[in-house]
Amino acid sequence: MALVLNDLFDYDYKIYQDTNAFKFSIDSILIAEFAKINKKDKVLDLCTGNGVIPLILSKKYMNHIYGMEIQKDIYDLAKMSIKHNRKESQITLINDDVNNVLNYFPGNSLDIILCNPPYFKNSEESHKNPFLPLQIARHEVKINLGNILELSSKLLNNKKKLYLVHLTERIDEIILLSNKYGMAVKYIQPIYPNFNKKSNIALYEIVKKGKSGVKMLPPLDLSKCKTYQNIFDGVK
Amino acid sequence: MALVLNDLFDYDYKIYQDTNAFKFSIDSILIAEFAKINKKDKVLDLCTGNGVIPLILSKKYMNHIYGMEIQKDIYDLAKMSIKHNRKESQITLINDDVNNVLNYFPGNSLDIILCNPPYFKNSEESHKNPFLPLQIARHEVKINLGNILELSSKLLNNKKKLYLVHLTERIDEIILLSNKYGMAVKYIQPIYPNFNKKSNIALYEIVKKGKSGVKMLPPLDLSKCKTYQNIFDGVK
Repeated sequence: MALVLNDLFDYDYKIYQDTNAFKFSIDSILIAEFAKINKKDKVLDLCTGNGVIPLILSKKYMNHIYGMEIQKDIYDLAKMSIKHNRKESQITLINDDVNNVLNYFPGNSLDIILCNPPYFKNSEESHKNPFLPLQIARHEVKINLGNILELSSKLLNNKKKLYLVHLTERIDEIILLSNKYGMAVKYIQPIYPNFNKKSNIALYEIVKKGKSGVKMLPPLDLSKCKTYQNIFDGVK
Repeated sequence: MALVLNDLFDYDYKIYQDTNAFKFSIDSILIAEFAKINKKDKVLDLCTGNGVIPLILSKKYMNHIYGMEIQKDIYDLAKMSIKHNRKESQITLINDDVNNVLNYFPGNSLDIILCNPPYFKNSEESHKNPFLPLQIARHEVKINLGNILELSSKLLNNKKKLYLVHLTERIDEIILLSNKYGMAVKYIQPIYPNFNKKSNIALYEIVKKGKSGVKMLPPLDLSKCKTYQNIFDGVK
């Protein structure tokens, strides 16, 4: 492990990372900034990694935030970062497989779920990283999109929301699986490396028992972003 | 009827329109420019209106192009425009309900279908135009999205394409219905009035027996477009 204590972009927080394995990405920042959370909402971040999403949310909101992470080493990093930033009373972490989440929260008990999950399918042909911690973070070896949508649908109260960051390419599966599990994609914000390229990732607001009909928000050109706090200023 | 003979934007064609009822929109231009057609492709435009899509395609390609329109008055306008531009030998129009399309083309016989269909659902609450020609053009009173996807799936050869322009808001239904009828959305290009607003329409390439996985192309800011021919220059 190659432990470092980094600045969390321009958030005035520090975060522990392992330069060999566990580094947060802009994708987590984007979904944390995209989410809209109300005062009394009960909030859970699935696949929380080194805790970057709960940390950012704790800066913006007073809500208690739960995070769940299967990998012990990265869970330990998240715990250290939460302690360093003195957020132990606001953030509770759980070290377990997300597939066991119903052991910790009853059905119909949450208002907001966030998730920056592994992006890539676990097919025989897929190029998986032989280093297991990175394989688990990137490929659907421990959890897949269907699991996340099914579990979110069970956990959320009616009309409450899953905020998902995922590959734009998987928009069709996200819509089909949301439909399968009684959820509906309400907002999509496509993110572009720049406006000459295809969109690589997108932000999704998915509502339990939501009505059909998708609003596609202004596209975000990442090459033009200067700050990360309030990254959507001027685009939504 | 208030008949006028207009320029077809910058295409160097003339087109007959009825200023009370049948005017083409930028949406038809966009889908005609978006489509990629190969030399031997058999091409059909469903809901062809006053024939703007076949006319544009006849400028860009040598293929024979079929168009189908239910409304006799607008079909007559299309016939007049095709004659005026001397395209009678390249464009064949059919005046019938699109739901009867299999009476004219056998299953598995087409390579490219284009469609700029009525956009709005025919629900009891929907504000429908009492003037029937406009009601038919805008609301799904004669044909709906499910009909178009089902018929396209029957008409197309495997791996061949439907190019659809439709409301961005209905992206979820388009993906669900494509899946239902053995089609897959392969490309989406979101169109924005400008980048401070939501996307209002999108262009869809939908492939019969296509694989899962969507490519979202660069967003198009309509407020920045100066020409219509080659409207995608610089964005794709």
